Amino acid sequence: MHQVVLIRHGQSVWNLENRFTGWTDVDLTEQGLMEARRAGGLLKANGFTFDVAYTSVLRRAIRTMWIVLHEMELTWIPEYKSWMLNERHYGALQGLNKAETAAKYGEEQVQLWRRSVQVRPPAMDESDERYAGSDPRYKHLAKSDIPLTESLEDTERRALIYWHDNVAPAIWSGQRVLIAAHGNTLRAMVKYLDRIPGDGIAGLDIPTGVPLVYELDDDLNAIRHYYLGAE
Amino acid sequence: MHQVVLIRHGQSVWNLENRFTGWTDVDLTEQGLMEARRAGGLLKANGFTFDVAYTSVLRRAIRTMWIVLHEMELTWIPEYKSWMLNERHYGALQGLNKAETAAKYGEEQVQLWRRSVQVRPPAMDESDERYAGSDPRYKHLAKSDIPLTESLEDTERRALIYWHDNVAPAIWSGQRVLIAAHGNTLRAMVKYLDRIPGDGIAGLDIPTGVPLVYELDDDLNAIRHYYLGAE
Repeated sequence: MHQVVLIRHGQSVWNLENRFTGWTDVDLTEQGLMEARRAGGLLKANGFTFDVAYTSVLRRAIRTMWIVLHEMELTWIPEYKSWMLNERHYGALQGLNKAETAAKYGEEQVQLWRRSVQVRPPAMDESDERYAGSDPRYKHLAKSDIPLTESLEDTERRALIYWHDNVAPAIWSGQRVLIAAHGNTLRAMVKYLDRIPGDGIAGLDIPTGVPLVYELDDDLNAIRHYYLGAE
Repeated sequence: MHQVVLIRHGQSVWNLENRFTGWTDVDLTEQGLMEARRAGGLLKANGFTFDVAYTSVLRRAIRTMWIVLHEMELTWIPEYKSWMLNERHYGALQGLNKAETAAKYGEEQVQLWRRSVQVRPPAMDESDERYAGSDPRYKHLAKSDIPLTESLEDTERRALIYWHDNVAPAIWSGQRVLIAAHGNTLRAMVKYLDRIPGDGIAGLDIPTGVPLVYELDDDLNAIRHYYLGAE
């Protein structure tokens, strides 16, 4: 039997301010730091351990991973960070307040941007100061890989490329894997592991800072999953 | 011109308790955490940035690196951790109080163990609960690579193998490198970079938590070095 543990970063400053975050590199709040500590403590108390950890290049996920590893006394395991595990790119909506955006464009339109599998939010312009191409962490990417906006499907595609290229071989080789990432990249993995077709997962919200444990068979099909320490 | 920044971890619990630490994985003290934050703030304020960071598999160095990266808003850069950057293995002395050890064996003997280039402290036994071979972080090592004790020269040798294999190529390729490590592994690098022969460096103490900046020519010879923010 194989196992992988997914964890969504703790509460961030913009979760609290109710803004579209996407690739914006906002930090955790005090509550977010506490959620991460609690998750690490729970994992340790339940006898979990890891051989390798994967995360995005966004600090809210990286710090969640670091805190979990510190709490588990596993600071020494290899860590890999990739933009392919970043949150969905929210295009020109990044930074906007969700309530104000709903007031301006209508709740229906916002729900479509958020929940439709194929609809992309309005694209960001390359001259926008928020454009990822100006950020040194993305300088090694082909320009065509730097998103101006993403549909859920776009995000899912890159998250699963990373899964198949990096995570699955590690699990297969017997390593115990931790992934600290974001709502939409983790949802892509859940959708894949549970073989949920189409938009059957659009309504699933993965709670922040709660370890989601998947047990997998030798073909990496999900046998069962559960949230550790959830009510 | 190339550049590399060395930083010795902040104060650890056993620095404070005056014990031989070696490979024992003790944590930072509150002062050690503060030293790391100060170092990160100094590096950022002075316009430093990094493309990659190297550290040991011991938490006092790893957490120093994490804190520096967080302060510099560089949590996203790749990190590499290796046992070859660990502190010198102190053999059977690990855990002993330095003053008590001096009282028992004499100050002269302790100075010989600490400062002689080739003398090794008494070896640890493989049945010792402190033996690194029982620790999962060293399970991929050949048994002959797991030390029972080390002379300064033993430590220097492995630290420089890591330097030549990993750090030097990164610097050559134009990457700006941060190394967060330990007194004896950093001293090995200083000795190499400044071309100091024999035991000419035995008395050099690198202060904790102060960035040591080396500027290097194209052959990676040191042009100059300085401590950032030192009096």
